[in-house]
Amino acid sequence: MGKINLKEKLSMFSDHWSPKIITEMNDYQIKLVKIKGDFVWHNHEETDELFFVIKGEMYIEFKDKTVELNEGEMYIVPKGVEHKPFAKNECEIMLIEPRGVVNTGENKGDLTAVNDIWI
Amino acid sequence: MGKINLKEKLSMFSDHWSPKIITEMNDYQIKLVKIKGDFVWHNHEETDELFFVIKGEMYIEFKDKTVELNEGEMYIVPKGVEHKPFAKNECEIMLIEPRGVVNTGENKGDLTAVNDIWI
Repeated sequence: MGKINLKEKLSMFSDHWSPKIITEMNDYQIKLVKIKGDFVWHNHEETDELFFVIKGEMYIEFKDKTVELNEGEMYIVPKGVEHKPFAKNECEIMLIEPRGVVNTGENKGDLTAVNDIWI
Repeated sequence: MGKINLKEKLSMFSDHWSPKIITEMNDYQIKLVKIKGDFVWHNHEETDELFFVIKGEMYIEFKDKTVELNEGEMYIVPKGVEHKPFAKNECEIMLIEPRGVVNTGENKGDLTAVNDIWI
């Protein structure tokens, strides 16, 4: 595995809400995803989830608050906590979570992505 | 735990080779560190280690190659692999590794940092 340039990897896809794996560290995966519009409410029963905004602005809605994240900002969604990401305009983010985590958690549906796309 | 602004956290310290913990995801820690000059050869027997350059330029020397990393580039050093980071000028990086990993691995000495400094 060589070095990974995030901008280069981000130029390789344009779809929304479909995380791409760029590398692994132990049993964790580092993913890039472009988002726009509303995601679905969901949670991950077994794991925390790291969000890091590379470009743009996003929000994570919780039952009791909404967090705004801008470029260079990070947020850890604790395991089991219901959340709904959304972005008014396209936003580029990095996710880190254990191998095998499904993007929509327990709430499978139209936005559930194939979970093993490497770029 | 609220959102974390990397630039704000980086403005809070100026020492070199002393990683600061900014958050945790499950049993992994996200750390910021400023580096300049040469580190020591070492490895981490039990874990991979993620390097991500936030600002500047750094190198990771291996026994058989040297990898140059610029802003926005990431590298995973596999577990057990001897490596020596260095930077000609000050470089700001993010590290991700399991809780408790010592910066100098098995090679304890002057550059071994206290391992529980949160900012």
